[in-house]
Amino acid sequence: MKHNHEIIEGGITAPAGFTAAGVHCGIKRRRNDIALICSDKIAACAGLFTTNQVKGEPLVLSIPRIRSGRLQAIVANSGNANVCTGTQGLKDAEEMGNLVAEGLELAPELVAVASTGIIGMPLPMDKVRIGIRKALPALSRNGGDAAAEAIMTTDTRIKKIAVNVSIGERSFRIGGIAKGSGMIHPNMATMFAFITTDAGLEAGLLQETLTAAVDLSFNMITVDGDTSTSDTVICMANGCSGVKVISGSEEYKAFKAALDRVCTYLATEIARDGEGASHLLEVQVTGAAVYGDARKIAFAVASSNLVKTAIFGRDPNWGRIICAVGYAGPAVKPERVCIDIGGIKLAEDGAYIDYDEKAVAGILSQEEIKLNIDLGMGKASATVWTCDLTYDYVKINARYHT
Amino acid sequence: MKHNHEIIEGGITAPAGFTAAGVHCGIKRRRNDIALICSDKIAACAGLFTTNQVKGEPLVLSIPRIRSGRLQAIVANSGNANVCTGTQGLKDAEEMGNLVAEGLELAPELVAVASTGIIGMPLPMDKVRIGIRKALPALSRNGGDAAAEAIMTTDTRIKKIAVNVSIGERSFRIGGIAKGSGMIHPNMATMFAFITTDAGLEAGLLQETLTAAVDLSFNMITVDGDTSTSDTVICMANGCSGVKVISGSEEYKAFKAALDRVCTYLATEIARDGEGASHLLEVQVTGAAVYGDARKIAFAVASSNLVKTAIFGRDPNWGRIICAVGYAGPAVKPERVCIDIGGIKLAEDGAYIDYDEKAVAGILSQEEIKLNIDLGMGKASATVWTCDLTYDYVKINARYHT
Repeated sequence: MKHNHEIIEGGITAPAGFTAAGVHCGIKRRRNDIALICSDKIAACAGLFTTNQVKGEPLVLSIPRIRSGRLQAIVANSGNANVCTGTQGLKDAEEMGNLVAEGLELAPELVAVASTGIIGMPLPMDKVRIGIRKALPALSRNGGDAAAEAIMTTDTRIKKIAVNVSIGERSFRIGGIAKGSGMIHPNMATMFAFITTDAGLEAGLLQETLTAAVDLSFNMITVDGDTSTSDTVICMANGCSGVKVISGSEEYKAFKAALDRVCTYLATEIARDGEGASHLLEVQVTGAAVYGDARKIAFAVASSNLVKTAIFGRDPNWGRIICAVGYAGPAVKPERVCIDIGGIKLAEDGAYIDYDEKAVAGILSQEEIKLNIDLGMGKASATVWTCDLTYDYVKINARYHT
Repeated sequence: MKHNHEIIEGGITAPAGFTAAGVHCGIKRRRNDIALICSDKIAACAGLFTTNQVKGEPLVLSIPRIRSGRLQAIVANSGNANVCTGTQGLKDAEEMGNLVAEGLELAPELVAVASTGIIGMPLPMDKVRIGIRKALPALSRNGGDAAAEAIMTTDTRIKKIAVNVSIGERSFRIGGIAKGSGMIHPNMATMFAFITTDAGLEAGLLQETLTAAVDLSFNMITVDGDTSTSDTVICMANGCSGVKVISGSEEYKAFKAALDRVCTYLATEIARDGEGASHLLEVQVTGAAVYGDARKIAFAVASSNLVKTAIFGRDPNWGRIICAVGYAGPAVKPERVCIDIGGIKLAEDGAYIDYDEKAVAGILSQEEIKLNIDLGMGKASATVWTCDLTYDYVKINARYHT
């Protein structure tokens, strides 16, 4: 059966049976800071979380709830991460969940809680309580953008996507929102991504599919090499489209392709909007002996401050690139390495070659830059997305005061 | 027998039987760019080199020569690293060594060659030849500072030290010069350190002692997380003081202590003069279960762009510090972690505590900042030095064009 997917409007509330809200309660000065996402009925759910040993209190609360495979609502705040806040922090996260559960008349176990922002400061619960009470009646089919704004920290714009997946006559939808934009490095970043779908999936299959999608998207971006304490990806599948997605079926192939698309789009949007970024840099490593080598080398290059400042300076400094290849870890043969940028070869067989400087300057002036490093060792490849390192990165992070 | 050491003038030529020169030949615009260091007689030698798989051609030539344990001269240039330059690059390195060997009437195998600067561009041998011819007659007992200048790249100042070691009535000396200041991350940095001593040591013992000293000094600094292709530490011991240093002896203890001092001083000077640096940050991790854990965590904190920009912004952002502790790798118990800066506690048992903001602001306004992270797990500790991440780092590296 033929299947395809197309981008549609509507973000996180595009799938049937989901509502959302975003309101301002004063944790941040101006922008929305409390987000609520709700399914009309209990949804299957899956999630992935930071690997940082220092975990936010909301994660301590929410991970077991999400692992149970059933969820109906997510409440998130930005401006304060509720990390390193001890037993009071855990109580605060619980209270956030309870307020939502009471308001929506749900069991508390069906509510996930997520917080992002500054680490080590007590959550201003007086504000949070007001915010949640304000958000509950604001839940609507049009609340997706307001929720997307409410999870932003240093992001400069909201990140959202929705796709409609058609299989013959039937269709279902996937929607998602995400936020960056500092402490971005797998696994995972400081990031949130909340994904909804009205397809019907069993929680185990949803987890397996989400894990695979995240491995090629949110786990393949780096902004600054810092893996945060609060990273959270949650996907809820409420089945409201009437389409059941079973392992191995045509529906599953369609769902998987569309979920990959949603995750990759949101992940690259996070990299593109990395703190202070002026370029999105795609680092593709090809010709590796095995995938793990390609991934390690792509991350070494994408994490290099020297490469990232060169991109900011619009300098095709392939010496810094091959230097990062050399220290990445996997065995390489430098004399086989070829490097090209936007399709123009900068170095061949590990040595400089003449290239058209004007054409390269043109490529480096574009917002999106594709770098290819071929190792000449095998057939494996990996792609990592990052952004350049700019004055504004330093400004944002030197000024973001505790 | 009582022994002690004191700082003296003279740098690399303070030890007896060493001369040096530094001249300008035009690889760089203005500053000296060819350095020569020479021993009056054949010296025992030891060396440590970059672990980057992409190695400069001068290293391909010099590593076997240094490993032979005998050396009499070092020729170095800055401005061009002679890396990724293929067979011509190796020929060029050989020619550099041969010109010095002919000029000093030495066997070519007694000359080490080192180059630092841009990667991937052919060495301008016309200039290098003129420079070496100019440097040979300039060799003198006063040439240490000129040589120290000639190895600088983005360094803002020369780095040198000399110590006089007394053991009863006898004495010997150790001198050293070094350069940074980008691509600084073990093992090793883009750095050079050339060390001379008029103590007499067998090459094997010298190598063992140098390796231990480097592990606690040059291998414990990071500027930008990039391990360069050209890092080189060479130590020559010519015995001209008449003091023989034998394993286990009092002389050996004195030599080891003084060499550690020389290496640690030069390493911290490199971190202090890191590209764009406005602060030297000492990251000490204590209370670790084993040394390897302490080292990994200290490096994670010292390598964090978020920590480094916070230090630039004079912000005691311990949340970023504990975040880096949590993703460093070794198992930690976040609820036991204590963090203090300049002796003032910022966080206790993994949670915020009240601290004197004014006193902390005073500490953060100093040029040298000491950070202590106690893990509460055991008794092992490690210290890493780094610098802050500033606008000038971005400026220097966005503007340093190929």
